[in-house]
Amino acid sequence: MNAQIISIGSELAGGQTVDTNAAWLARQLAMLGIQCSKHVTIADELVPIRDSIVSVSREADLLLITGGLGPTPDDLTRTALAEAMGVRLRFHQVSFARIEAFFKARKRRMHADNRNQAMFPESAEPIENGCGTAPGIYARLNDADIFCLPGVPYEMKAMFEQSVRPRFSDDVRQQTILHQTLRTFGMSEAEVGDKLSDLMRRDRNPNVGTSAADLVISVRFHARGSSESEASELIDRDAAEIRRRLGKVVFGESEDTLADAVARLLIERRQTLSTAESCTGGLLAKRLTDVSGASSYLIQGIVAYANEAKRDLLQIPMDLIETHGAVSAQVAEAMAVNCRRLSATDYALAVTGIAGPTGATPGKPVGLVYIALAAPVETVVKELRLGENLTRTQIRDRTAKIALNLLRLQLIGHS
Amino acid sequence: MNAQIISIGSELAGGQTVDTNAAWLARQLAMLGIQCSKHVTIADELVPIRDSIVSVSREADLLLITGGLGPTPDDLTRTALAEAMGVRLRFHQVSFARIEAFFKARKRRMHADNRNQAMFPESAEPIENGCGTAPGIYARLNDADIFCLPGVPYEMKAMFEQSVRPRFSDDVRQQTILHQTLRTFGMSEAEVGDKLSDLMRRDRNPNVGTSAADLVISVRFHARGSSESEASELIDRDAAEIRRRLGKVVFGESEDTLADAVARLLIERRQTLSTAESCTGGLLAKRLTDVSGASSYLIQGIVAYANEAKRDLLQIPMDLIETHGAVSAQVAEAMAVNCRRLSATDYALAVTGIAGPTGATPGKPVGLVYIALAAPVETVVKELRLGENLTRTQIRDRTAKIALNLLRLQLIGHS
Repeated sequence: MNAQIISIGSELAGGQTVDTNAAWLARQLAMLGIQCSKHVTIADELVPIRDSIVSVSREADLLLITGGLGPTPDDLTRTALAEAMGVRLRFHQVSFARIEAFFKARKRRMHADNRNQAMFPESAEPIENGCGTAPGIYARLNDADIFCLPGVPYEMKAMFEQSVRPRFSDDVRQQTILHQTLRTFGMSEAEVGDKLSDLMRRDRNPNVGTSAADLVISVRFHARGSSESEASELIDRDAAEIRRRLGKVVFGESEDTLADAVARLLIERRQTLSTAESCTGGLLAKRLTDVSGASSYLIQGIVAYANEAKRDLLQIPMDLIETHGAVSAQVAEAMAVNCRRLSATDYALAVTGIAGPTGATPGKPVGLVYIALAAPVETVVKELRLGENLTRTQIRDRTAKIALNLLRLQLIGHS
Repeated sequence: MNAQIISIGSELAGGQTVDTNAAWLARQLAMLGIQCSKHVTIADELVPIRDSIVSVSREADLLLITGGLGPTPDDLTRTALAEAMGVRLRFHQVSFARIEAFFKARKRRMHADNRNQAMFPESAEPIENGCGTAPGIYARLNDADIFCLPGVPYEMKAMFEQSVRPRFSDDVRQQTILHQTLRTFGMSEAEVGDKLSDLMRRDRNPNVGTSAADLVISVRFHARGSSESEASELIDRDAAEIRRRLGKVVFGESEDTLADAVARLLIERRQTLSTAESCTGGLLAKRLTDVSGASSYLIQGIVAYANEAKRDLLQIPMDLIETHGAVSAQVAEAMAVNCRRLSATDYALAVTGIAGPTGATPGKPVGLVYIALAAPVETVVKELRLGENLTRTQIRDRTAKIALNLLRLQLIGHS
């Protein structure tokens, strides 16, 4: 089965927005055993969209279209599809009622243009949108199945999960493909690749590959088997072997974050945590509370951005700050120790540093960060020199990850 | 002049890698006054690549191809181009010498396959690669100029700058194109479109369009003029008109965030801010400290996730929490008022809510959030019902944006 994807939007064709929908859809299709051979991105222009729909419907068995389903005149997908099919647009009362209800539930006034979203090519079927106003469209043309999905990524993904994936799960049954991802922190991609080189041969089943994103190296592998249990056995064997070779750097599976890993460990141990942040300015607490249920272990977080806040909220003596500077091992340690005591938690993580681009002083460059972890039996302080080439966002991101990993290693007894 | 882009690579078509080259190239072309109407992404398969080159060369004046120039058998761009042109590949001695020199300079052994990179379609011209082994290719087909560039982003960008851009800079001299973006919060895309509909006519100069991302609606416009001053005058006139029509919902330009807008206003007024967060768990402070120099106005932030933290850090009486619940207008108001008093800041923003997916209680659904803003003359409390279809991430993101916007409107006197 061969699929193609068309992404519609002048902001995509003009490069103002990078299209991430097509790659996401291609990966989902791959998991269903459907090969995606081509994506086309087209500006909001009727004729090229119509012509692409026609030509792709001749080449592919499945065509996924994203974008162009909004209410305004530059949203042309439904008109282009109707023209490609040689049919007219027809008003669909049930879809219109759903759009009205969407606005009503949110106490918002519906715009007259939203009525356009209830227009569908004759013989096409509406697809309900659970999270937005734009219904999707299902149609057939030249023996191809065509699904039009919204361009807004979360609406697109939800609609794909609910309405597209289920239609293709039958095709998969002849061969089962199972996927697994192990997430690591603390080794470079080259080091991980080195340890797994024999498993990463191109023609091997399972197929193993790595990808890197902001210091997190993911090991992705998928196994093909004639049955679920065969594929599952292959996956489990590789997962165990990879975990054995990589050891403590493996912190989780699939989409796990370091905060997820820390959350699991704290919940398992029924222990609690507090945070005291300067340069990360709330990012550390934010990451921890990205996890639903964080209230069972994260008691409180303090963003002590000004020196006065360090004094008032964390009882850091002003003369300690004056002697060593706010960005120092001594202040980081005092922040962690006092935070742990004041919040009566098992652990406290503290961060102080220079995230830049301003704020560097002689001897204290941008990227200098101190992380302190106050734990029941010890307090650990770590100095980072993240380099002046990183952006503020990167310095803050890496600091938060390294801090979470420090706590994770402490919790598994590897600090 | 009309351009199209072809990106080649099975990792792109399969979605393992998101193609950022095409968007980058489209933006560069736009700055040269060249409209890019379509991108095509194709797997490493000879026939589809060849056919796409042929069909694009008939539609466009300029075709940029990235990827598929490596030395291995799955790098098919040069072969596909030769087939599209109906010519043979020919060995190019000078390019081969450059590839050999590249390896020699790095003391690396050259692989026999690298010889393939010195093969070019007859009548095509090699383009020197200053930073990698793969030379580019320039050719003409069906009156289109075709440039084949490497897929590695930094090699591709360097080659574009050195060898593609200069060929088109002459075309630019006759015309200047200037871009501007205004960022808005508080109106739907349809409402914005409605107010600007006459400016958004397709053939108008400046060309005005809107795009939406997580409640922020951007109005993007670009003007063409025979001189810089002519284009600039057109941009300024439209910017003023759009600001006049949209009023207070315009919070900034280009890549500005709501936090940037708040930062500017607080710095201008030399006023200070503190935050008290429950459900956003640090996100609000994080957004505010994304801005470099935040220490001049953000004094402190408190993440009072547990009820005990609300009591200890913000002096919220336990019986207030027991009577109304932690997620209530009363608790939000007390958090803001106490936070402002305890931190001695001009403003304090407080947030309490149910970010989900767990935590809902009868009468308090996921997405119920209270935001309170304590200001010098008044305290404002806002109830949000963000809907149970949103994810935890979306609820937290929207809450933070609405809170920052509440403060922004207060600062400009429109609360």
